[in-house]
Amino acid sequence: MTHPKFDILGIGNAIVDVVAPVDEAFLSRHDMHKGAMALIDTNTADRLYAAMPPAAETSGGSAANTCAVAAMLGAKVAYLGKVADDQLGRVFRHDIGAVGVHFPSTSLHGGAPTARCLIMVTPDGQRTMNTYLGACVTLGTADIDAALVADAAVTYLEGYLFDPPEAQTAFRRAAEAAHAAGRKVALSLSDSFCVNRHRAAFRDLVDGHVDILFANESEITALYETNTFAEAAAWARRDVALAALTRSEAGSTIIQGGDTVEVAAVPTKVIDTTGAGDAYAAGFLAGLTSGKPLAECGRLGSIAAAEVISHYGARPIADLKKLIG
Amino acid sequence: MTHPKFDILGIGNAIVDVVAPVDEAFLSRHDMHKGAMALIDTNTADRLYAAMPPAAETSGGSAANTCAVAAMLGAKVAYLGKVADDQLGRVFRHDIGAVGVHFPSTSLHGGAPTARCLIMVTPDGQRTMNTYLGACVTLGTADIDAALVADAAVTYLEGYLFDPPEAQTAFRRAAEAAHAAGRKVALSLSDSFCVNRHRAAFRDLVDGHVDILFANESEITALYETNTFAEAAAWARRDVALAALTRSEAGSTIIQGGDTVEVAAVPTKVIDTTGAGDAYAAGFLAGLTSGKPLAECGRLGSIAAAEVISHYGARPIADLKKLIG
Repeated sequence: MTHPKFDILGIGNAIVDVVAPVDEAFLSRHDMHKGAMALIDTNTADRLYAAMPPAAETSGGSAANTCAVAAMLGAKVAYLGKVADDQLGRVFRHDIGAVGVHFPSTSLHGGAPTARCLIMVTPDGQRTMNTYLGACVTLGTADIDAALVADAAVTYLEGYLFDPPEAQTAFRRAAEAAHAAGRKVALSLSDSFCVNRHRAAFRDLVDGHVDILFANESEITALYETNTFAEAAAWARRDVALAALTRSEAGSTIIQGGDTVEVAAVPTKVIDTTGAGDAYAAGFLAGLTSGKPLAECGRLGSIAAAEVISHYGARPIADLKKLIG
Repeated sequence: MTHPKFDILGIGNAIVDVVAPVDEAFLSRHDMHKGAMALIDTNTADRLYAAMPPAAETSGGSAANTCAVAAMLGAKVAYLGKVADDQLGRVFRHDIGAVGVHFPSTSLHGGAPTARCLIMVTPDGQRTMNTYLGACVTLGTADIDAALVADAAVTYLEGYLFDPPEAQTAFRRAAEAAHAAGRKVALSLSDSFCVNRHRAAFRDLVDGHVDILFANESEITALYETNTFAEAAAWARRDVALAALTRSEAGSTIIQGGDTVEVAAVPTKVIDTTGAGDAYAAGFLAGLTSGKPLAECGRLGSIAAAEVISHYGARPIADLKKLIG
């Protein structure tokens, strides 16, 4: 097996975030489930945007955030995802390229516009997301370059990718190509509602096709339909070789075979939790692919997550390499 | 004279800001004059954007910022400016409408795209701006609705509007319409380089056609070609009925006839000074048009400015009405 050109290849929905602070009443007025990600159609997106306060546009997308953060930490990273040939697509392409992520996916011409995620941030820093998938629904197997997958130590897939219809097949194809090349497959469960929408498929993937699993407490308990974190963690220990389970301010629990590593969160003033899990996965994978021990992988994840929740937007503003010391 | 429907009508370049943190070396590498605004063409905009770190897109434009902030403070506000019928134009239109600013200007179809300002923020919080005017160059006299001007207590013009060729005539037309209706004309000098580009025209305007003048120290000394603030302030006292001269952390000096009011700045941690002057003018005009004494107008300006420099982006995130107490 040759040395891979990339440490991480991320595949996901390529999205531009539209972020605005709102009060709790805004969420209930618009029937939003706080903390969750809901899929919305064009009309709902237009209606909701019209109701939103002034917003900031920043590149987002779960796996794309992870790729950007990992690259900022020094990892060699590639990303596959679908944007349209429009202004927001150019914003997405600029931002991911500017941190050194290789992004060979072509832009969609003459179809749906670049995906947007309307993100409402409440005063407690919690984010509630409404995603218009736009061009992302066209991502399919043709967009998965098997040679690129074979050239990445870890192919990282976001659970959100199960929502657009064509992407599930692309998702499995990427996992197969990675394993055929002797590489690892990592999966983030993304969102407990997403897990509920696709539980059977996720369970099948996790039990045998995923090497590294990322999930927060509500996602892992949703996957295993249990109320306790301990029980869910026990199932994860059985199903995957390596799991990194995040628990907000309680830090994270890393599980590998019989080993368990507890990692503390890095305390910070929470402004906007958007991208916290993505940043954690980035730090963790950047550490793992550079041969760091699990505790250090978790520490890098905690530092990256703390940076992105300390300001609006899912990607770091500070120099991460300085922060990790 | 009937009571005006609007407290403030702003006219300016309608711009979306593209904001990124850079180090000092980035500025010298790209021959930028720190703190200034430079006009750039399409090719330079593309080249510079390609060199920029990941950025955030937020609505900007000097007078538009002032309008948005004044509306957030409770003033009745309208705005005229030119965006294109594209995604960034819709972002601009959304953001200014979302704070209640009346924005009747039609979008440009089939021409240049919406204007962008590439803003580099150095670690000291100073911003250096590079403006691609795009659709703004089409703003002309046809875009000035004299009835709307007559219906605003103050027509507020940004000095930057002197850069696009057609806008100077529109600028003067708006000032004439305001005075014909017995209303006031306010002008912001915007930028010392802009003052140097158009000094004669600005001097002519200020001496007789402007009732309320906003400028910072470098702009007012550039206007009067003097090295001392005191001398520039003396000239301003002679030329305009009311001048509000800002001096960063030293606060502001308000001059009206024989009166001088000194206003303290509101201390804050400076992250990004973009929009500080715009926000000050907004607070000042919101106070003035609601009949507040000059010291209170200055205090409102200082509070609004402190809010916008405490985070990235030129428009407030916090609830300004709460901040003014």
